[in-house]
Amino acid sequence: MDRLYEAVEKKGHVCVGLDTSVDYIPEGFKKKFSSVYDALFEFNKKIIDATEDVAACFKVQIAYYEALGIEGLKVYKKTIEYAKEKEAIVIGDIKRSDIADTARMYARAHFEGDFKVDLVTLNPYMGVDSITPFLEYTDKDKGVFVLIKTSNPSSKDLQLLYAGENRVYERVYDMLRSLIEKSIGEYGYSPIGAVVGCTNSDEAGHIRKRLKNMFFLIPGYGAQGGGAKDIKNLLIDKNGGVVNSSRGILLAYRKHGDERFELHAREEALKMREEILNEL
Amino acid sequence: MDRLYEAVEKKGHVCVGLDTSVDYIPEGFKKKFSSVYDALFEFNKKIIDATEDVAACFKVQIAYYEALGIEGLKVYKKTIEYAKEKEAIVIGDIKRSDIADTARMYARAHFEGDFKVDLVTLNPYMGVDSITPFLEYTDKDKGVFVLIKTSNPSSKDLQLLYAGENRVYERVYDMLRSLIEKSIGEYGYSPIGAVVGCTNSDEAGHIRKRLKNMFFLIPGYGAQGGGAKDIKNLLIDKNGGVVNSSRGILLAYRKHGDERFELHAREEALKMREEILNEL
Repeated sequence: MDRLYEAVEKKGHVCVGLDTSVDYIPEGFKKKFSSVYDALFEFNKKIIDATEDVAACFKVQIAYYEALGIEGLKVYKKTIEYAKEKEAIVIGDIKRSDIADTARMYARAHFEGDFKVDLVTLNPYMGVDSITPFLEYTDKDKGVFVLIKTSNPSSKDLQLLYAGENRVYERVYDMLRSLIEKSIGEYGYSPIGAVVGCTNSDEAGHIRKRLKNMFFLIPGYGAQGGGAKDIKNLLIDKNGGVVNSSRGILLAYRKHGDERFELHAREEALKMREEILNEL
Repeated sequence: MDRLYEAVEKKGHVCVGLDTSVDYIPEGFKKKFSSVYDALFEFNKKIIDATEDVAACFKVQIAYYEALGIEGLKVYKKTIEYAKEKEAIVIGDIKRSDIADTARMYARAHFEGDFKVDLVTLNPYMGVDSITPFLEYTDKDKGVFVLIKTSNPSSKDLQLLYAGENRVYERVYDMLRSLIEKSIGEYGYSPIGAVVGCTNSDEAGHIRKRLKNMFFLIPGYGAQGGGAKDIKNLLIDKNGGVVNSSRGILLAYRKHGDERFELHAREEALKMREEILNEL
């Protein structure tokens, strides 16, 4: 998480989301390749090349590759490897949830196996047992983002319920608190981060205060509706979080009516970076 | 879920868990194959052959295969395909959690893609949005098991919290209730089932009453400590649930000090079936 903090200092808050649906690839580009898998990888490669100096990190959403089966997961693997060759920080957006030996298997898959990334997203519903096996890798500079408060409408179904005086999402923090407090890094953040969606400013301020020492992965920018104004209160001294945009960046070319997708992706990432910095 | 009900009527309550760690394969057997992946697949094949007439279904835990990367996931795929050739019902124990288009990608992966199974396990923390995309497949005879109350110690961290008068896990049911009630099948069960761990009898009775119309996938038998006595109150008229055992069955051979694993797996599955039936 310290490296991510440093990347934000250097490059700003943009996390480029490679949630790449095959449908997102421009037709003209797709036609150049003999398989959809090659087209997918080459698309990602061009996005990485075009945005690496503007992006604090890349987030790769495994579901889009898993949907394509074995061949899709090969593209997931190659995409991560390519970003790592470029020395980018990579988040595997896997939202896995399991316990004990099974969780250990997921940790092995995503921290040392074919799908090796720097950080993964995790779902806390099964309790702290579903997080701790991943923390065995923190001395190898790995970290996790635990889903705390997501940005989708039905996040209210469970996350916003009150359990006593606190909401369920705050209880996720409570269950992690002792682990967080004993693992705080150089810049005040634990390797246990949080996924926290863009939200109204009051709530953002409350969350930021409550979940101190957690670095935030903030989804919901652009295509999902959140804007730069909402980000400020989720940060501390202009750091402590990255903001993900996927479709906003990958599909920026469509607004321009031409297929130079990597060019428009870069422009969009630059614009987003500026929008956020201007609000801080 | 109707087919699973019928399988329980015919074959009993045992769900054989193919949570196959490479470490579970007897050394003598492993040596026969040129790769660990071949050994893993052939091990699963023999377990399936030896237990298919005793098991209501098979549950394949994807984490064990994901840990082995692309080659491991090929074994996951082949294992599912082999069980389907035998006309077995297969549960993909994936515990995925995501929303909207991303959830749709997971549904595609596990209901129509390379990893095509009959039923999947899902994590509800993100709310009902994380379940509904999978229900688009119920007319193709697919179903889901939503994590409600799991059997691990830290399930108390969130699932057992009181949110008002009800516990969080009951609120998961509440959020699904209208979807469940409008999708009840031939035998009284919705294609939306629940993962409910073995637990004490009072609580089991309460859960069974509260979560009516949900078919249960019950983990925690054998290796995880739960026994046949606890099952009874989770069932209705001797049906409405399958009971998973993974290590108990896969590693039964170790208790006998010989490597005829498929023989001992079959004996263990038969014994477990009897133990459960005797308590009903």
